[in-house]
Amino acid sequence: MEKRFTELKARLQEISDLGGAAAVLDWDQSTYMPNGGAAARGRQTALLARLSHENQTDPALGRLLDELEKGADNFPYDSDEAGLLRVARHNFEKASKIPSSFVAILNEHASESYQVWTTARPENDFKAVAPFLEKTIVLSRQLADFFPGYDNIMDPLIDFPDPGMKAASVGKLFDELREALVPMVATIAAQEPVDESCLLQAFSVDDQVAFGVEVIKAFGYDFERGRQDVSPHPFTTSFSIGDVRITTRVKENDLREALFSTLHEAGHGVYEQGINTSFEGLPLADGTSSGVHESQSRLWENIVGRSRGFWSFFYPKLQAIFPDQLGDVEVESFYKAINKVERSLIRTDADELTYNLHVMLRFDLEQALLEGELAVKDLPEAWNTRYRDDLGITPPDDRDGVLQDVHWYAGRVGGLFQGYTIGNVLSAVFYQSALTSYPSIPDEISQGKFNTLYDWMRDNIYQHGKKYTANELVERTTGDPMNVEPYLEYLRVKFGDIYSLD
Amino acid sequence: MEKRFTELKARLQEISDLGGAAAVLDWDQSTYMPNGGAAARGRQTALLARLSHENQTDPALGRLLDELEKGADNFPYDSDEAGLLRVARHNFEKASKIPSSFVAILNEHASESYQVWTTARPENDFKAVAPFLEKTIVLSRQLADFFPGYDNIMDPLIDFPDPGMKAASVGKLFDELREALVPMVATIAAQEPVDESCLLQAFSVDDQVAFGVEVIKAFGYDFERGRQDVSPHPFTTSFSIGDVRITTRVKENDLREALFSTLHEAGHGVYEQGINTSFEGLPLADGTSSGVHESQSRLWENIVGRSRGFWSFFYPKLQAIFPDQLGDVEVESFYKAINKVERSLIRTDADELTYNLHVMLRFDLEQALLEGELAVKDLPEAWNTRYRDDLGITPPDDRDGVLQDVHWYAGRVGGLFQGYTIGNVLSAVFYQSALTSYPSIPDEISQGKFNTLYDWMRDNIYQHGKKYTANELVERTTGDPMNVEPYLEYLRVKFGDIYSLD
Repeated sequence: MEKRFTELKARLQEISDLGGAAAVLDWDQSTYMPNGGAAARGRQTALLARLSHENQTDPALGRLLDELEKGADNFPYDSDEAGLLRVARHNFEKASKIPSSFVAILNEHASESYQVWTTARPENDFKAVAPFLEKTIVLSRQLADFFPGYDNIMDPLIDFPDPGMKAASVGKLFDELREALVPMVATIAAQEPVDESCLLQAFSVDDQVAFGVEVIKAFGYDFERGRQDVSPHPFTTSFSIGDVRITTRVKENDLREALFSTLHEAGHGVYEQGINTSFEGLPLADGTSSGVHESQSRLWENIVGRSRGFWSFFYPKLQAIFPDQLGDVEVESFYKAINKVERSLIRTDADELTYNLHVMLRFDLEQALLEGELAVKDLPEAWNTRYRDDLGITPPDDRDGVLQDVHWYAGRVGGLFQGYTIGNVLSAVFYQSALTSYPSIPDEISQGKFNTLYDWMRDNIYQHGKKYTANELVERTTGDPMNVEPYLEYLRVKFGDIYSLD
Repeated sequence: MEKRFTELKARLQEISDLGGAAAVLDWDQSTYMPNGGAAARGRQTALLARLSHENQTDPALGRLLDELEKGADNFPYDSDEAGLLRVARHNFEKASKIPSSFVAILNEHASESYQVWTTARPENDFKAVAPFLEKTIVLSRQLADFFPGYDNIMDPLIDFPDPGMKAASVGKLFDELREALVPMVATIAAQEPVDESCLLQAFSVDDQVAFGVEVIKAFGYDFERGRQDVSPHPFTTSFSIGDVRITTRVKENDLREALFSTLHEAGHGVYEQGINTSFEGLPLADGTSSGVHESQSRLWENIVGRSRGFWSFFYPKLQAIFPDQLGDVEVESFYKAINKVERSLIRTDADELTYNLHVMLRFDLEQALLEGELAVKDLPEAWNTRYRDDLGITPPDDRDGVLQDVHWYAGRVGGLFQGYTIGNVLSAVFYQSALTSYPSIPDEISQGKFNTLYDWMRDNIYQHGKKYTANELVERTTGDPMNVEPYLEYLRVKFGDIYSLD
């Protein structure tokens, strides 16, 4: 048995190491690679992906798992061994049930579709992408059908980023959230807009980056086991538990850009850095799900990084760095500016409150497309109607409407968006749970101290890596199933205060 | 036949792409990787090396080569097809004749030996490395013996970096060179030392780097297909013909460090960038040999970058960047300072003239060790004797004597040094040949123009990649076998002028 486990770990480590190598190549491509490197890099990453897929779907791995599972009763559910077998089995099934020939077709289509989208968006040309999107939907349905027995065609697709989640329960959560958020946003939109001009001055790029670095070091992000670089789209990537890197992007004339993307990615980063190091090289050394991962980025970015307490400590430091720009700006004006709620067209620019409305309408539209209730030709109209209903605005064109996100134009529809809002919901669930154990956390944040909060997250979330599902983590930490109430309460209190709502 | 060639190219491309991926991981390790990434990186690179070795030694590749070689008479020697078959066969034999088990032993020993050396050198403790060096010599002899039929035990080892070169011919070349250089250096050493203090002031790091970048762009180094970063030891690496990167290191108080390492690595870089793009993904897309590669780094660093003509154009620009430091320094003083000849202990710090003496004594000592004429315990004494004979100085300790280079303490003895001096010799051979065709080159250099020289090198050297051996390239460009005369003549003229020798 022990020998078999050793064999399993060796096989899994090879898969992990190929993944780590591929991640280095991707990181380099997004940060430093010169244009001339693109063609060969495409070949190199495709080769590593092929080798990894061969390892992941090796029937010998399946037989090894069969054998080990026979003796799995010896391991309690909470043991690392049992967790490893669950995750390895899940990954093996996910990889093995999709034929290689289908993966090749999907990748080729994804690449073509993406290319078309890169010109169609600036040209506001939905018609150009429509046939590709139609094929994407057909392929996404086929992908789901490799996992028969689902209740909803979205379920197998959601299961990739958010294992164990289902369309029905996510949809129910989202309906509750939408019902509360739409009127809240409408009430705020009726008020005089907040003045955000203090954020839109010229701020030295180096000073902006240095300030962000100071903050995330205080959060617990470890630069001995990571680093921050600049990339067009900020992201977090992990080559091992000892090398978890983040990126940011900087706008000289908008203080929010670098700062909050740094805090956001550092949230992902501390999660991956905090995984139990005995999981190194195993598939347990990964985040639980897209939703739980996003809960950490949003926790550190929003619940901590946009809180009044945080800025009561850090704002004088920021003023000292930018005395000309912020010396005469009160902390309260700054706090309101970074929390300005505004009904806007673009998801990625949205504030904490409206962001979810952008996400949830995409989730519903994905489902309608996959179920055949919405035709691709009618998608722009459906998109605009939902923006009118939920956000009270109508996109002037498809460029800033249905064409804005790359997701649907990169080979897949279904399961791509729910993680963002599940993350917001869970950020409050976990934070609330930490507060119940340690009511002093808000006071500590006001003193620039984050170790109690960080330690709670590490002990309850990070260290477990992928051993538990999102639902299991929620039940372990709160005793209850996932629910939106802590998040709604957080939003009601915070924005009720800022906007003097009832 | 065509189908078989396609099959061969697909196999070779996979080997090339695994190598490219491994090179990205190495580059990252030397430039940006945080300390915490080391353990996993070791596993990842070892895995890629193992996969590459499996591909390189696949018996099916050997059978494919057998088949294709039967029809090779259809291809003239100069055709790309014939070149590809020669190089692929050479690489296959080199990889296949060394058992995997031996590679594993060698790698493990190399790693242990290197670890011991990293502390033994600062502690001046030759005794600590001696047993490892003894084992290294045994292993190096075994490595040579996988290629029986040699005239000299160094031959198979030299053949790795410098295919086709042999100890006897290299030794003969070196003897001629030494005979001329030793008295030249002694004569110069008897003179008043040149004042180099103008180089040892405080120079802004960013400005130093920017100046080097301006120069290498003028040389022809293409930043669309490469980039320069900072690393502890400067190097050049290639991930594909479209992505050839260099690194430099900067000393704030020594202007030579960044500048000449940038020019040196850019010489390697333009070589790799200039390879025929139809060789992409094939083993032809590589430098011919260590010696030819070094000929290009030394050409651009020394023959061009330390020439009077070069500085007649670039010195006013450098003065404009550093007016406080260089405004009052005459170009002639600067020129003499950057060409100062000095008998010193450390190879990597040596000037253009003495450098070869450092190299050649190592070449001789390697041979004596491998042939059993010199025992490891007697190596420090032999080293010091040769420094006294050739350079007129005696190392005060082993730290700056026999322990100074990592090479012998990283798993191999034999064939590690000759490329440096062959490179110097060839830099003059090729430069002379270019001048014969285009006598205007020195004038163009004085105007900051390098395209005639660059084009000659690209057309005669770079584009061929690994298609020809070093000896073939020399005979194709000069009509004669390799000889030291152009290099000696270059040194006599240059240093005869600077030091007013007869």
